[in-house]
Amino acid sequence: MQAYTLRKAEAEDAGAILDLIHALAEYEKEPDSVECTREDILRDGFGERPIFECILAEVNHLPVGLALYYFNWSTWRGAPTLYLEDLFVVPEHRGKGIGLGLFSKLAEIAVDRRCRRFEFEVLDWNQLARDFYHGLGAFHKEGWLPYRLEGEALVKLAKR
Amino acid sequence: MQAYTLRKAEAEDAGAILDLIHALAEYEKEPDSVECTREDILRDGFGERPIFECILAEVNHLPVGLALYYFNWSTWRGAPTLYLEDLFVVPEHRGKGIGLGLFSKLAEIAVDRRCRRFEFEVLDWNQLARDFYHGLGAFHKEGWLPYRLEGEALVKLAKR
Repeated sequence: MQAYTLRKAEAEDAGAILDLIHALAEYEKEPDSVECTREDILRDGFGERPIFECILAEVNHLPVGLALYYFNWSTWRGAPTLYLEDLFVVPEHRGKGIGLGLFSKLAEIAVDRRCRRFEFEVLDWNQLARDFYHGLGAFHKEGWLPYRLEGEALVKLAKR
Repeated sequence: MQAYTLRKAEAEDAGAILDLIHALAEYEKEPDSVECTREDILRDGFGERPIFECILAEVNHLPVGLALYYFNWSTWRGAPTLYLEDLFVVPEHRGKGIGLGLFSKLAEIAVDRRCRRFEFEVLDWNQLARDFYHGLGAFHKEGWLPYRLEGEALVKLAKR
């Protein structure tokens, strides 16, 4: 018997998604970093031009975990890449295989949607997570560094 | 006087986009790595549910460079991120500011589309590119490692 269920999130779940994002930020000891609102989730996840999708994990119909993802594209493969932005299971429901269940569900979605790759980022010190990913056959794309431009620098470049 | 022009690619440009992807692979000394076809570009860039967009740089109406990008989403910002997959200018047209022009255009698109971030990856040994990015105010997201799952491992996880 499976102790949890997985389902695609709907617009009605925007509040639950936001709660889980806040719980993740709390867990990462950055509770004040979340600027996201319910309106942002509704607009970009369930509006006219959705950017992301979300799977919710539930125990007794209560949301206890989420996987938020979207689709990138590989020029060399000529195919989409499923990109996992955040995966989180509330601490009191860990050890039940929910994280693996979410990962497996995402792989299924990736294959269904013609993706050739499933990608995500991990913090270098998080050896527990890295060991879990290696166990699934994932690997560190060595040599590639993620870069970011934001804030004033982004606005300045836009006006250049 | 600007020696080049930039414009949004259309379906009719699928062949030119593919030629530039092949030129990039050639430049990276991996000419056989490109599995992408014209049909893949038409389907995922210009079909019913487009995943990526593309800006073409032209000199005398001939395509000499491209920037291929799509939109990710930041849960903490509650906003899209413009993600640059590939930027390439053919060697014979470098030094004319086309790369910077493409970067600046992308920043403009990012701001227009409510993006809070503009992200991309760079090879760690490519100091010339990294210096250029640092000059624009971009930074290496230190501590974050890009991971990938593909091939047999992906299919196996999907069936788990």
